[in-house]
Amino acid sequence: MKFGLPPADGTRFRSAWADLAGVGRDHRWGGYSRHGFDDADVQLRQWFTEQATRRGLDVENDRNGNVWAWWGEPGPDSVVTGSHLDSVPGGGAFDGPLGVISGLLAIDELKLRGVTPARPVAVACFLEEEGGRFGLPCLGSRLMTGTVDPDHARRLHDPDGVSLADAAKRSGLDPSGMGPDPARLASVGTFVELHIEQGRLLTAADPAAVVGIGSEIVAHGRWRITVTGQGNHAGTTRWTDRHDPMIPAAAGVLAARREIANFPGAVATVGRIHPIPGGTNVIASSVQFWLDARHESAVVTATLVDAIVSAVRQEAAAEGCAVVVQRESMSDRVVLDAGLGLQLSALLDVPVIPTGAGHDAGILAPHVPTAMLFVRNNSGISHAPEEHADVADCVIGVDALADVLEELVK
Amino acid sequence: MKFGLPPADGTRFRSAWADLAGVGRDHRWGGYSRHGFDDADVQLRQWFTEQATRRGLDVENDRNGNVWAWWGEPGPDSVVTGSHLDSVPGGGAFDGPLGVISGLLAIDELKLRGVTPARPVAVACFLEEEGGRFGLPCLGSRLMTGTVDPDHARRLHDPDGVSLADAAKRSGLDPSGMGPDPARLASVGTFVELHIEQGRLLTAADPAAVVGIGSEIVAHGRWRITVTGQGNHAGTTRWTDRHDPMIPAAAGVLAARREIANFPGAVATVGRIHPIPGGTNVIASSVQFWLDARHESAVVTATLVDAIVSAVRQEAAAEGCAVVVQRESMSDRVVLDAGLGLQLSALLDVPVIPTGAGHDAGILAPHVPTAMLFVRNNSGISHAPEEHADVADCVIGVDALADVLEELVK
Repeated sequence: MKFGLPPADGTRFRSAWADLAGVGRDHRWGGYSRHGFDDADVQLRQWFTEQATRRGLDVENDRNGNVWAWWGEPGPDSVVTGSHLDSVPGGGAFDGPLGVISGLLAIDELKLRGVTPARPVAVACFLEEEGGRFGLPCLGSRLMTGTVDPDHARRLHDPDGVSLADAAKRSGLDPSGMGPDPARLASVGTFVELHIEQGRLLTAADPAAVVGIGSEIVAHGRWRITVTGQGNHAGTTRWTDRHDPMIPAAAGVLAARREIANFPGAVATVGRIHPIPGGTNVIASSVQFWLDARHESAVVTATLVDAIVSAVRQEAAAEGCAVVVQRESMSDRVVLDAGLGLQLSALLDVPVIPTGAGHDAGILAPHVPTAMLFVRNNSGISHAPEEHADVADCVIGVDALADVLEELVK
Repeated sequence: MKFGLPPADGTRFRSAWADLAGVGRDHRWGGYSRHGFDDADVQLRQWFTEQATRRGLDVENDRNGNVWAWWGEPGPDSVVTGSHLDSVPGGGAFDGPLGVISGLLAIDELKLRGVTPARPVAVACFLEEEGGRFGLPCLGSRLMTGTVDPDHARRLHDPDGVSLADAAKRSGLDPSGMGPDPARLASVGTFVELHIEQGRLLTAADPAAVVGIGSEIVAHGRWRITVTGQGNHAGTTRWTDRHDPMIPAAAGVLAARREIANFPGAVATVGRIHPIPGGTNVIASSVQFWLDARHESAVVTATLVDAIVSAVRQEAAAEGCAVVVQRESMSDRVVLDAGLGLQLSALLDVPVIPTGAGHDAGILAPHVPTAMLFVRNNSGISHAPEEHADVADCVIGVDALADVLEELVK
């Protein structure tokens, strides 16, 4: 392992990173809000295209809103790295862009090292990995791999009612072309995604570790739960006359908290809730809330969700409300390529850790030998403005990625 | 009592009512969303000005965003009727506009009856009675009566960050003039507000009653509760590492439901909740929610709120979250003028009922002899699209208001 770049590389990282600092800042919530095909996303794609072109890479916009920058002729058995440029609402700076920038800088590093790759190399940016705008995470990689029906995807819409098809069109992408891209998928020989660590598992495995290798992505999914009651006046409606959908929704939030104690290793979260119409002096007519649930096992995840939904239904029956549950996405546990993991382990000698976060790597893994590298996050926080990786650690991450690519392109 | 107008009046009511049917419709939530100084509000003010002018009434825009239409020279000891034109988000058609339209039609009726008023008569439309945009209900009547500090009011802002001062300015009203208007207040000798009934008390008092007289408005207030935790990733943050503000907020919703059983006659509602940033895969960094609480007694209301807040604080302590409670408004119980109530009772012979809803009448009552008339709502629902009064009942309401005005202007 050749960790420890000259100081110049810290400068190089800082300079590349500074380009992104102002794009998509969220002045209401702090951090960044960058979502598929929004202004920030368009700016970031332009930035990526410029950066890639400046490096002599060939940029391709694929039919699913993903952008690819090729070093060498695009072709079979390529080594692809990259990540995504979008964020959750009010998210951190690193989740996504760190993998893209590290891909570009790793190519710089390989060139400095005088490496002539025997396989084509690409950096890819996948569309809307967080699902922050259209609700479905890993939208670009799901479309490319055929993991989502393109008709279903085109009809997804953002909170303002803009469909994915319309948003793509406005951004210059023909939505009718969206869908499985087997030729492109077949050209990817290996995929390596570098990402900021999003919890505390890396440091728990080795307090000195700066980089880790991913072993698996736990099963995870999103459920949209709609409780319908009867809108009414908050002052004049006696409590015996109420059908208030907030009550079962609140019971769902607390059930999520309570039930995870019964499912060791599981997490369940309600971070988004939307009473309609949302007036202070109004009993809501309906409430939508979203349940995010995860566990190593998809079966346990489903059982956990059932337990939470059952608590919502019970309260809804008492309140005279109706409940509709829609699964927005469900990703089974993904074990990343074992052989590739062993190869990287031997090369880097760093901890191997699982992750509770979903990634485009998890969507590609069933199709392509896939690996993940994690860079230390000394806040332990992600999906929030406090998410942080030190520049020194990011530089080590770039070097590790360069080592991996150098090994793979031989 | 002269209830039972000729059929022509049903036509007249229908025709006047039809003017408003298309203004401010809420296509997302159904019903209407009309808020102080928004497009719908501006359209409704124009409509009111036109209607009043067509009737030969003199229109005045006062310094607090309220509009007055005078029959006769504005002057002391006037008899004022009216209500408001704004709605809650996704509210019904009647709450507010019914009182305004009934005021105009009652003047038509008095003219048909050949009444020559001995006192000036006016129809008033008060600004933002629901507080749906700037959070403070009865904004116009509060400003006029000095019940809110104008500096505080000017700084109130809507969810998009637009201040009341800026919204007023854009709508052509100089916000620096906002504040107590003692001369105008002194000119009001009697105030009578006609309103759709918002619950089931009228029918409970007399199943055949179409109109009721108001006795009192119960104490009511709004509290904004902010719970601050630590935003984080919904998948990678172990539950022991969480400081999730949704948990205490949900506990608050359920506590409101539970505690009203301990305070007979009280109601408490959470109809509005706003997690920040509100991402599906994000543990919120903070949650704001609004508690609406009401009871005949202000002391009981405060005790109820304390009990709910204490449940929130207890859960917040366990979750490692902080809680800030801000009282946005509090109106003590208002007993409407007893002498005036007796006079109207003798005239109309209809049930006398209290109301759990706030009204501009409640703000004026401490300053001016004030009465309320309620028109039957056969849905029993208010603050929702299902709110409904039959045309036949509305016509009887107009006639009752005309009777009252005729009696008062003698």
